[in-house]
Amino acid sequence: MSNKLSNLSNKQLTELHQTFEAEFQKEKLARATRAEVSIDLTRGKPSAQQLDLSNNLLEAYSVKDLQEYQGMDPRNYGGLDGVPEAKSLFAPLLGANPSELIVFGNSSLELMYLCIHFYFQFGGQKVTPWSKEGSVKFICIAPGYDRHFQITEKFGFELVTVGFNQDGPDMDAIEALVASDKSIKGIWCVPKYSNPTGHVYSEEVIKRFAKLPRVACQNFKIFWDNAYAVHDFEDTSFEIPSLLTLCKQEGTQDSVIMFASTSKITFAGAGVCAVAASDTTRNELIAHLGALSIGPDKINQLRHVKFFGSYSSLQIHMRNHAKIIAHKFNLVLATLDEKLSDYDWAVWTKPRGGYFVSFDTKPGLAKKVVSLANELGLKLTPAGATFPYGKDPKDSNIRLAPSFATSEEIKPAIEKLALSVKLATLAQMIQ
Amino acid sequence: MSNKLSNLSNKQLTELHQTFEAEFQKEKLARATRAEVSIDLTRGKPSAQQLDLSNNLLEAYSVKDLQEYQGMDPRNYGGLDGVPEAKSLFAPLLGANPSELIVFGNSSLELMYLCIHFYFQFGGQKVTPWSKEGSVKFICIAPGYDRHFQITEKFGFELVTVGFNQDGPDMDAIEALVASDKSIKGIWCVPKYSNPTGHVYSEEVIKRFAKLPRVACQNFKIFWDNAYAVHDFEDTSFEIPSLLTLCKQEGTQDSVIMFASTSKITFAGAGVCAVAASDTTRNELIAHLGALSIGPDKINQLRHVKFFGSYSSLQIHMRNHAKIIAHKFNLVLATLDEKLSDYDWAVWTKPRGGYFVSFDTKPGLAKKVVSLANELGLKLTPAGATFPYGKDPKDSNIRLAPSFATSEEIKPAIEKLALSVKLATLAQMIQ
Repeated sequence: MSNKLSNLSNKQLTELHQTFEAEFQKEKLARATRAEVSIDLTRGKPSAQQLDLSNNLLEAYSVKDLQEYQGMDPRNYGGLDGVPEAKSLFAPLLGANPSELIVFGNSSLELMYLCIHFYFQFGGQKVTPWSKEGSVKFICIAPGYDRHFQITEKFGFELVTVGFNQDGPDMDAIEALVASDKSIKGIWCVPKYSNPTGHVYSEEVIKRFAKLPRVACQNFKIFWDNAYAVHDFEDTSFEIPSLLTLCKQEGTQDSVIMFASTSKITFAGAGVCAVAASDTTRNELIAHLGALSIGPDKINQLRHVKFFGSYSSLQIHMRNHAKIIAHKFNLVLATLDEKLSDYDWAVWTKPRGGYFVSFDTKPGLAKKVVSLANELGLKLTPAGATFPYGKDPKDSNIRLAPSFATSEEIKPAIEKLALSVKLATLAQMIQ
Repeated sequence: MSNKLSNLSNKQLTELHQTFEAEFQKEKLARATRAEVSIDLTRGKPSAQQLDLSNNLLEAYSVKDLQEYQGMDPRNYGGLDGVPEAKSLFAPLLGANPSELIVFGNSSLELMYLCIHFYFQFGGQKVTPWSKEGSVKFICIAPGYDRHFQITEKFGFELVTVGFNQDGPDMDAIEALVASDKSIKGIWCVPKYSNPTGHVYSEEVIKRFAKLPRVACQNFKIFWDNAYAVHDFEDTSFEIPSLLTLCKQEGTQDSVIMFASTSKITFAGAGVCAVAASDTTRNELIAHLGALSIGPDKINQLRHVKFFGSYSSLQIHMRNHAKIIAHKFNLVLATLDEKLSDYDWAVWTKPRGGYFVSFDTKPGLAKKVVSLANELGLKLTPAGATFPYGKDPKDSNIRLAPSFATSEEIKPAIEKLALSVKLATLAQMIQ
C-alpha cells in the first residue's frame, strides 16, 4: 500500500513540488540541448522486431505453390468469402467453424465500418435499417478503443458510455439500457485484453452477452472485436468462450458479429481479417459486400496459409511475439512501480496480454500530464481518446502503448511520464 | 452491305426457320450426348494465360527488398494514401501527377462504392451530403457497366439513362440534364473502351466533360473509371486527354474522381487500385477513409513497383496481354462475320481495346437469344445487364466477354450465339 498524498502537509507538498519542478526543467533543458527525438507511446503498433518475425511471409507463396493449388484461381476475381484454407486456419482464432467465417482484406476495422454502414443504410434480410428508426444509439464500454467510437460518432449515433467491473463490462447497466431503450442498436466489445484496460471478459459476462439480444431491439448487433485473441504474454495461451457458440445455444446467433485479424500477428498493414457470424448474418454481409468488392486478395490469404501451415504454428509464432512485447510491458510496470509507488500518485493496470497499460491519474490531470510529458519528449495518446467523443468525464485516463518503442526507450519514457504525473498532481494540490 | 431479312418472303423465312430449328435441335442433342461443359462469355475476366504473365509478381518482393527499402515500414499500419513509389508508377496510367494520386487496395470498385457512400452520407469540405438534398439522381451512359449502375441503384438513386454518339456519350443530352435538374449528383463514365461498347471518348467530348460541372449542382461528381487505359489491342498504345488536367484549366477539378486499377494488368483479385483527384477531393477522401482503413496493403504496392520497375515496362507487359486477348477478339469478329453477315441479323462493335464486344439483336430478342444460347451450353451476360435496373428498353443488347474463354472455345461459342440469333430472329418474323 502506498502512502496517501493527502496525509502530507502543505509545506511538504510545496517542497516536493519545487523538487519535481526543478527536475522537470532540468530534464526539459537537457533534452533541448541533446536535441533528442521524441519517444512515441501513442498507438498499439507492432515494433519492427515483431514484424521481422513474419518476414518470411514475403516469400512464402511461390509460383510453384500457385501451380500446385487445386482451388479456384486465386489470382482472378471472385471468392468473396475468402479461400477455404484460410477459413480453416483462422476458425480457431475466432472460436467458430470454418464454414462460419468470411476471410477478407487487410483491415478488420474496415469490415466493422462497412457492417455499421450496411446495417445503418440497408439493414438485412430480417433486419430493418437502423436509419429508418429515428435516432441511433450505440453502447461504448469505456475506457475503450477510440477508432470503434469514432466510427459510430461519424455516423451521428449517440454514444452511451458504460463502465467496467472486475470481470468485464458492467452487464447490469448494459442489460438495463438495451431493455429500456430500443434505439440502442449495438455495442462495441473487445472481449480479451480490452483496449486499453486489459480486461478479459469472464465466462459469466460472455454468457450474459449471449442472452442480451433477447431483451434488445430486433436489429441489435454485438460487434465483438477479438483483436487480441492470441496475444497473451505468458506461455500458456488461454481462450475465452466463443460468443457465437453461446449465442447459438440461446437462439441469438444472428445478433453477433465476431472480428479478428492478423494485423498484430503478421504484418499490421498487410495481413488478413476475418469475421465469424451466423448463416443469416453472413449471407447479409456477402450480399452487401458483393455490391462493392471483387473479392478479397486471395493470394495474400494463401500466403498466410502457407506461412503458418497450421494453427498450432500460429500459436508458436505468437509466443515469439510475447517474448518481445512482454519484456516491454515488464519494463513499463517495473518503472511505474519504482517511480510512482511511494505515494498514491496514480493507478494502472497490469495486463496479461494485449497492447496497452491503462493509467489513471487523479481526476482532472490527464490532459495536463499528456501536455507536460510532451514537453519532455514523450508522445502519449491524447487524453480523453479512450472515451466517446474524446471526452474523459474524469480527465484521468491515459493509454500507454509501449509495443512500438524500443526496449531502451521504455524506462526513460515512463520516467518522463512519472515526473509529469508528480508535477501535475502536486501543482493541483497546492493550488 | 448485308441483305435485308425484310426482303425475304414469308415462305423463305419459314424455310430458313425450319433449317435453323433443325440445326439447333441437333446441336442441343449432340451437346447433351457429349455432356459438354458450358462456355462462359459472361464476365470481363482475364484468362489464366493472361494471369500467367504476372506470376513473377508472387516472388517479386523479397526480404532483401524490404531490408533495403528506405521509406516508412511498409509492413506496419499507416500510409493511407499509398507508397510514393506506387504513386509515381501509376500516375501516367491516370494522366495525373504522382501527388494527385491515392493508391489503395485491390479493388477500384470498392473505392467507387466508398466515394458514393461518403458523398451521399457525409459530403465533403465544400460539399453538402447528397442525402440532405432530397432525391438523388445519377446519369448512367448505357449500354454500360452493370456494377457501376448497381452501386447507385443500391443507394436508391434514380438512374437516368443517356445514350452514345459515335465519339462518346450524348453530351447534348448530358449537359441539358445536369443544367436543368439539380438532383443529378453524378455520372458514371468509362472513357476509353467503354464497357461494353468499346467507345473511346473524343477530345471534344472530354473537353465538354471538363466544363460540365460549371452548369451542374455544387456537389456534382464525375466518376471517371479509366479501367482500360492501357488495354489496347494494337501495338501503338494511345492515350485519351486527362480529364483532371482539362478540369484544372476550367476550374472544375473538384468535381472529378478518376479511377484505375491493375485488375486487368496483373492479378484481377490481388492487384492495386488508384484514384487521381484534386487536393480538395483527395483530402476529403483521405479524411473519410481514415475512419475505416488502417491503410492499404503497402507491401503489395511495393511488390507491383518491383515487378514493373517502370511505366514503360508496364506498357510492354500490356502488349503481351494484347497478343493473347486480341487473338480472341479477332476470332469473335471473324466468326460473327462468317455466320451473321449474309443478312442483317444483328450489329456489333469492332473494339480496338478493352474487354467486350457489344452485340445488338433486332429489338425484343436479346433475352430470347441469351436463353437459347444457354440451351446450347453458352453462358452469356443476362440480357439487360448493361442498362440501369437491368432493363434494356429495346431488349436488344448482349455483352460478349471473350477474354476468359480459351481460344478453342471462341469459335464454337460464337457459332452457338449466331444460331440462337438466327432462330430467335426468324421465329419473331414469322409469328
